[in-house]
Amino acid sequence: MRVNNKEYRTIWMENKTVYMIEQNLLPFSFKIEKSSTYLQTCKAIKNMLVRGAGAIGAAAGFAMAQAAIEAPTKNYHSFLLKAKKEIEKTRPTARNLFYAVERVYLSAVISPAKAFETSQQIANEDAEASQKIGKIGNTLIKKNARILTHCNAGWLAFVDYGTALSPIYKANASGKNIFVYLDETRPRSQGARLTAWELYHEKIPHVIIPDNAGAFLMSQNKIDLVIVGADRIANNGDVANKIGTFEKAIVAKEFGIPFYVAAPTSTFDMNCKTGQDIPIEHRSEDEVLYQSGLTKANRLTQIRVCSPGSHALNPSFDITPAKYITGIITEKGIIKPTQKNIQLLLK
Amino acid sequence: MRVNNKEYRTIWMENKTVYMIEQNLLPFSFKIEKSSTYLQTCKAIKNMLVRGAGAIGAAAGFAMAQAAIEAPTKNYHSFLLKAKKEIEKTRPTARNLFYAVERVYLSAVISPAKAFETSQQIANEDAEASQKIGKIGNTLIKKNARILTHCNAGWLAFVDYGTALSPIYKANASGKNIFVYLDETRPRSQGARLTAWELYHEKIPHVIIPDNAGAFLMSQNKIDLVIVGADRIANNGDVANKIGTFEKAIVAKEFGIPFYVAAPTSTFDMNCKTGQDIPIEHRSEDEVLYQSGLTKANRLTQIRVCSPGSHALNPSFDITPAKYITGIITEKGIIKPTQKNIQLLLK
Repeated sequence: MRVNNKEYRTIWMENKTVYMIEQNLLPFSFKIEKSSTYLQTCKAIKNMLVRGAGAIGAAAGFAMAQAAIEAPTKNYHSFLLKAKKEIEKTRPTARNLFYAVERVYLSAVISPAKAFETSQQIANEDAEASQKIGKIGNTLIKKNARILTHCNAGWLAFVDYGTALSPIYKANASGKNIFVYLDETRPRSQGARLTAWELYHEKIPHVIIPDNAGAFLMSQNKIDLVIVGADRIANNGDVANKIGTFEKAIVAKEFGIPFYVAAPTSTFDMNCKTGQDIPIEHRSEDEVLYQSGLTKANRLTQIRVCSPGSHALNPSFDITPAKYITGIITEKGIIKPTQKNIQLLLK
Repeated sequence: MRVNNKEYRTIWMENKTVYMIEQNLLPFSFKIEKSSTYLQTCKAIKNMLVRGAGAIGAAAGFAMAQAAIEAPTKNYHSFLLKAKKEIEKTRPTARNLFYAVERVYLSAVISPAKAFETSQQIANEDAEASQKIGKIGNTLIKKNARILTHCNAGWLAFVDYGTALSPIYKANASGKNIFVYLDETRPRSQGARLTAWELYHEKIPHVIIPDNAGAFLMSQNKIDLVIVGADRIANNGDVANKIGTFEKAIVAKEFGIPFYVAAPTSTFDMNCKTGQDIPIEHRSEDEVLYQSGLTKANRLTQIRVCSPGSHALNPSFDITPAKYITGIITEKGIIKPTQKNIQLLLK
């Protein structure tokens, strides 16, 4: 997508260097960060310099390719295996990470060049799938639709285009006069910071709302449709996504508002029978207790926003059971999330 | 309640001066603010130096008494009427405000001394009702209960003791080994700032959670009971309370978790047939876009936390329909919220 009149992907690799938009600095400054070793790329995933299901996947694939390039001829295989474990340790929830590492590892066993090629292929597939999701998802969006989204499943969360936001970009481009409500998405506020930044730059009418305002707006008939992303989807259609997704799904169901999940098929994990099998990442309480932002003097500063002495919980994801989900928008079509439909889709 | 080993009320009046805990500085510093005119007290209500249903009510009553004391003998009645309108304009949602202003106004018509007396009486009644709510609400709390609360309906929101927190204080004092989950309550974070401050000072085990984490924790069987406060209750039992309350009520119902509202009978508004008749305050978008807190150097600073250029909505309250509420805990007993039960209760 375009930033300052230049086309960017969220993440890309040239030779043995990975380039990433530094997402911890967004929306306040736009900077490209370089990583020249697989361990540096691991660190970027862990501290969320790069974040979002698809972007994490691409980063993990690139990291695995970097490891193959770095590996000494002598201990090539043991180096690869150690690197694989290291990369898999960075973030536990997003399926895309494990999918990419596995695929690039199998190529790395053949050669570093093959690993590089596969990692590029995964990134390209992610961008293509996102673009298709936009086209397919756009068929669900009526003229003048008011859409709620949670967290950031935009192009910043993938290699390009995004998932939940991709149909929104398509709908806007096709002149549907849409309006988007963005959940702030505490504690890291990806909605208020990243999704708002994306939509502002794409000139799509939107407004940020506190996560608390969902039911109120729905009760006032202000929301026609909810679209969110996914970090992992189990065999039975249960969806792991950013904390708060489950809450919105319950509330949307109560009001009879369609609730869609947009995700590429690489998000499905056939090793997870149900959502109960998906590991939930718990991050540092500091993400709740402190918040960063710009002072009046334009200085990026961190402040404590909670009462001193108190502690916080920070579960990063929740599981929305399939029964709350109207449909899953994938690059291969839209399905109702049942085990049978998912198996047919992935065939 | 005790702060630094001294007993305090949230708000009190001596002679013609109103004393209030400066709640915009909490939890980072504890300061008593004075107001010597009714207009100054109006400003304190408006900018939320004093906030919370009962405390707003007491403040409004004291402001009306101040107006009676300030009123010139010549235009006594017209001054009173003008002041009444001014006070009623400060905050639109809390019933307690209108209840207190009306009662003190009727006394002010007789004399300033009578107005002063009535305003003191209202403050005392508020504290007594809160204390009774604690005793009655405690009967609902089992040993080892894990309780979720939203916003701040503690002693800071009333003259003393609080409503939602009053049963929690009683349960803790009676050795029930309770644990409290506090919704952060964006955008003003009264849960993370005021409720956390109260519970920390009372040494009650608690943890702050993002507003998004409610459904996740309930799905993990971590919450036995929800207790919240109320700003106004309609004739049919619909409850206006802090934005996000409705969302928690829907989610609690989905999991079969009891959802209680604690409020003194002065919160009931017989002029509101249903929740649709309760005016909802919309506050400045800046409360969402900016946040204040302490820097590492202990300086209270405001920062922008949302993407520059984007706007925000800030509805401050929502309406929870009666059907989602297990019971309302009042100083006169616990009722299921139906029109008949409410009429019987208020007789």
